[in-house]
Amino acid sequence: IASKLPDTGTTIFSVMSALAAQHQAVNLGQGFPDYPMNETLMARVNEAMHAGFNQYAPMQGHLPLREVLAEKVAFLYGTAINPDTQITITPGGTYGIYTALTTVLHPGDEVIVFQPAYDSYIPNIKVNGAVPVLIDLQFPDYKIDWNEVRRKITPRTRMIMINTPHNPTGAVLSAADIEELRATVAGTGIFILSDEVYEHLIYDNIPHQSILRYPDLLERSFVTFSFGKLYHCTGWKLGYCISAPALMQEFRKVHQYNCFSCHTPSQVALAGFLKEKDSYLQLSGFMQAKRDYFANLMSHTRFTPMPSHGSYFQCYQYHRISEEGDADFAVRLTKEFGVATVPVSAFYQSGKDNRVVRFCFAKKEATLETAVERLLKV
Amino acid sequence: IASKLPDTGTTIFSVMSALAAQHQAVNLGQGFPDYPMNETLMARVNEAMHAGFNQYAPMQGHLPLREVLAEKVAFLYGTAINPDTQITITPGGTYGIYTALTTVLHPGDEVIVFQPAYDSYIPNIKVNGAVPVLIDLQFPDYKIDWNEVRRKITPRTRMIMINTPHNPTGAVLSAADIEELRATVAGTGIFILSDEVYEHLIYDNIPHQSILRYPDLLERSFVTFSFGKLYHCTGWKLGYCISAPALMQEFRKVHQYNCFSCHTPSQVALAGFLKEKDSYLQLSGFMQAKRDYFANLMSHTRFTPMPSHGSYFQCYQYHRISEEGDADFAVRLTKEFGVATVPVSAFYQSGKDNRVVRFCFAKKEATLETAVERLLKV
Ligand SMILES: CSCCC(=O)C(=O)O
Ligand SMILES: CSCCC(=O)C(=O)O
Repeated sequence: IASKLPDTGTTIFSVMSALAAQHQAVNLGQGFPDYPMNETLMARVNEAMHAGFNQYAPMQGHLPLREVLAEKVAFLYGTAINPDTQITITPGGTYGIYTALTTVLHPGDEVIVFQPAYDSYIPNIKVNGAVPVLIDLQFPDYKIDWNEVRRKITPRTRMIMINTPHNPTGAVLSAADIEELRATVAGTGIFILSDEVYEHLIYDNIPHQSILRYPDLLERSFVTFSFGKLYHCTGWKLGYCISAPALMQEFRKVHQYNCFSCHTPSQVALAGFLKEKDSYLQLSGFMQAKRDYFANLMSHTRFTPMPSHGSYFQCYQYHRISEEGDADFAVRLTKEFGVATVPVSAFYQSGKDNRVVRFCFAKKEATLETAVERLLKV
Repeated sequence: IASKLPDTGTTIFSVMSALAAQHQAVNLGQGFPDYPMNETLMARVNEAMHAGFNQYAPMQGHLPLREVLAEKVAFLYGTAINPDTQITITPGGTYGIYTALTTVLHPGDEVIVFQPAYDSYIPNIKVNGAVPVLIDLQFPDYKIDWNEVRRKITPRTRMIMINTPHNPTGAVLSAADIEELRATVAGTGIFILSDEVYEHLIYDNIPHQSILRYPDLLERSFVTFSFGKLYHCTGWKLGYCISAPALMQEFRKVHQYNCFSCHTPSQVALAGFLKEKDSYLQLSGFMQAKRDYFANLMSHTRFTPMPSHGSYFQCYQYHRISEEGDADFAVRLTKEFGVATVPVSAFYQSGKDNRVVRFCFAKKEATLETAVERLLKV
């Protein structure tokens, strides 16, 4: 078999989670919560199943869920979204990204990707025969050098991918970044993919610079979201994509023959659950408390924190990381100290960063305590 | 936006279901059951959620589910399957087909597809830049002309797609067909995609000719299955793919960056549920009774049945179908008589068949009765 992805191995998240299980390590690697999810949401799924919502949802998603999402977008960002033509429910954020890329990319197209990048982006581009054009975010605060972006644009540039809050660094885009983005794409046919799966998980009172705030940019954008990340149920594999009608029409042509539709009972449950604004307004405070709790514990270790203003993640420096290489260090940390992380090199096409490892703080306090007790010995 | 699928519209299943809803028609179009699903299975999902199974399952699927599937394959087909390397749980059968095609197809590859074909096959081939090579099944029993298959093979033939029991016709492959298939691919590098989402839904004591019976063919095959079709929960969007280890490794490279993993609580629930062999041994009898009940009611109408030995579906002839065209006839049947069907032309790339419409009999007796009362007036 001629591989479609010859230089792709197993995703780092599977590798580190398997290693963590093997060595009974505390798993601060793959990004998933370990505390219980909301009881009401589970109860609503159970009700939906028993009410008979077990058959195909419409391909674009359960209408009441799309409607409540449109209300949420209007309330948060002041933008009117048509639930019929602009929202599609997807089996997770990763799938939304894959489908958006497959919708627009033709062989030979170029896509501007900022590194470190969530590990599906580059294989998603390559599987479509397109070419990732890589730009390193600027250490240590992982900002975008927009001049470099403009220098890398060619007639083949089809898309720019952004991600705020950013995985793995927790960096967030500012209003000034959005201005730069707008100036960069003005007068071109370049599309934007904005991965916003950590929407709401943004801290320190910083406003989330969603593309949904900017109708002029939304015209050329796909914006992807995740329910799993927000509602502590990553295993439910549910998210959504918002786009301009003309783009969404093409997205659905791919989606209808990829997964076709999504888990119906969860969609029915979330449609009811999201009617309460607290279901999303409380998320930032909840997760910021975890970030701060972890940061405070970690301040007693030899690890040096990087800034993190959002997401599930906080990166840390430590001199042995660069000496050993972050991948080897991460393996040793799992095996010898019993704490799994993700080496940030896994988010680079070159496989080289060697400065930091990523910890997931979306965990019970007891889990974070056990992990840090172990990290104190490093 | 330059469309990846310029000549693809909205899938016929969405179109007919929307039309059915609009005209309050009995929906015998899109293939989904309207009777309640198994209580135990729902209860198991609820238990799994409350036991905390709400985070990412492993990318390849929940291990106990893969193990029980391997046991089932050994029991039914006498073939040993390694759950670690040969089974991946997918968000539905349609997704399994998409992912298998994306795994093997490079631009310019040819794929042999029999028409009528499930409506995702051809767009799935085209979105990968490959070329469908179409062969019509032979009216009226929709058999494969294997000589024609051999004539259509070229050095670019990458794959042959088969589907048994067949959607939309209910035709099933025989052991002689498998012999022909074996002879056809012998000595070539041609892959096989065997869509077996209607496994178990095969009637009249005919044995299911699963590729899983034939280890020599499995070496070059992807075989796709659906839990939704079997357990009356098409909205759960869960299925699986079985393949040779070398093929499965490549399949997972695509899958890990497409959906990554599937709904965890359902996987946990099914792992327990499938331990009882009755969970699949009773399916054929259950659904054959529905086929026969519907056929008996329909015998009083002016529609003439085609043979159907499997699946959810039975096609019917009626002189007005060819006179009006099946697509127009199906629309009229929905609007004027209140019964939605699927016109079989939708399963042809040419969009032309105009001989039969497809009825889904996976419905409550009362639903079938109401539908046929209305069809008596045609
Ligand atoms: C799809 S598994 C990866 C989860 C995640 O977002 C991460 O750990 O970065
Ligand atoms: C994915 S919707 C189509 C369901 C189905 O298999 C059919 O109606 O043929």
